[in-house]
Amino acid sequence: MSTPDTKRLKTNDDAPYELVYWPGIPGRGELIRLLFEEAGVPYNDTAKTAGSKAVPTVLGYMSPDNTGDATNPPVFAPPVLKHGDLILNQTPNILLYLAPKLGLAPTEGDAVFHLNGIVLTILDGFVGEVHETHHPIATSLAYEDQKPEAKKRSERFVNERLPKYLGYVQRVFDAKTSGHGPWLYGDKLSYADLVLFQCIDGTQYAFPKAVGRLRESGKYGSVFKLYDAVKERPNVKEYLGSDRRSAYADGIWRHYPELDQE
Amino acid sequence: MSTPDTKRLKTNDDAPYELVYWPGIPGRGELIRLLFEEAGVPYNDTAKTAGSKAVPTVLGYMSPDNTGDATNPPVFAPPVLKHGDLILNQTPNILLYLAPKLGLAPTEGDAVFHLNGIVLTILDGFVGEVHETHHPIATSLAYEDQKPEAKKRSERFVNERLPKYLGYVQRVFDAKTSGHGPWLYGDKLSYADLVLFQCIDGTQYAFPKAVGRLRESGKYGSVFKLYDAVKERPNVKEYLGSDRRSAYADGIWRHYPELDQE
Repeated sequence: MSTPDTKRLKTNDDAPYELVYWPGIPGRGELIRLLFEEAGVPYNDTAKTAGSKAVPTVLGYMSPDNTGDATNPPVFAPPVLKHGDLILNQTPNILLYLAPKLGLAPTEGDAVFHLNGIVLTILDGFVGEVHETHHPIATSLAYEDQKPEAKKRSERFVNERLPKYLGYVQRVFDAKTSGHGPWLYGDKLSYADLVLFQCIDGTQYAFPKAVGRLRESGKYGSVFKLYDAVKERPNVKEYLGSDRRSAYADGIWRHYPELDQE
Repeated sequence: MSTPDTKRLKTNDDAPYELVYWPGIPGRGELIRLLFEEAGVPYNDTAKTAGSKAVPTVLGYMSPDNTGDATNPPVFAPPVLKHGDLILNQTPNILLYLAPKLGLAPTEGDAVFHLNGIVLTILDGFVGEVHETHHPIATSLAYEDQKPEAKKRSERFVNERLPKYLGYVQRVFDAKTSGHGPWLYGDKLSYADLVLFQCIDGTQYAFPKAVGRLRESGKYGSVFKLYDAVKERPNVKEYLGSDRRSAYADGIWRHYPELDQE
């Protein structure tokens, strides 16, 4: 329990990586893709490579008849990561597994848990709560069938929850543990930075006025400085300009102008 | 990547454990307490020991002025675990850290990630989504100010989400990875079993009719068998009957009869 452990390694594990996710949206899959792209590590992205089988592949994992295999329990929902024989789900779990292998997190020590805690909170605020803004009653109902409730929830999100989560992330940057660079934790980019980038990018797409106003307030300077720094990472920049990056659509991060406000 | 790794150890780390959580409710703190209680490992529970300072202690961690310390980033919300100099938050993160130290999970290997994935899903379904049933619009509003929306969300929860999550957990029991006993993963009790017990217990308190009907359906036999098995563990049984176990109140698991249904 000393200063953050920054030991990192890339394993020699040669098993191929496969990401299984819905085609046509960035969604939670994007939080995984950015790790591979930043690290320059190849992965098979079934949303892009499986053609007409992309959706059936996802549905096969989610089937009520699926009880896993000899060494893996069933998964609940995508994203799913296959690495050799291992099958994992739950975004923060996949990130926890992948990040040290891709050189984007330490392999052991307190930093593993500090980063996991930071990432879980970012995902709660900018994935979980953003999804609730347009589906506050039921995921099985269309947005059009829960618009009044979505309006109410979005007002609270924009005015209460979004500043609260941004304020927390700014405090993580203000902490002694964030090092001297633009990074959230220690003096190197970690997967938490990639997660924060994607979460800000998606939330900004969904609520451009609200995020714009909060950016201009100057209260969260380090958050947006990190956002800009990640966007300029050479591998990330190449990826964002490529056709491997899906446009936002009807996923977690949706833009309904009536839910946004300054 | 062979069969689940069941190597476990208790560390010799003598640093004291401290749990910081709201007094007067079981809440997310209960998910941590059950590990200590099952393992028979002492912990300082500030909700019970800090008296009039219990609430200020929680608020101190959540303060907008708190930027952590020399080796820890700030936390977002309780539960908070202190172990020596280390400070962690986020329930699944604390569980991931504690479980191997308390002999309730393997220390390495695929099983670490399988268990983490299962636990994250159980927490999503029986903590996160249950909280949304009574607060679908805003955590800053009282339940009384969002009753119509809570009614709608609860109907969907009881009829769609609750069977979906119970069905998933039953599939985890049906998997080859669940071993021969009543346990979720492998042939020994793990922290995932304790988490599932608490989540079923709390959800049953909140929705007694709905959970009762689902139990009687017989479709989720292994889930309720596990529930009964954990309840009879000697240390858990002693704990549940002691004054260290808080009664349910206005926390995550609340009983509003108007939200329940058969």
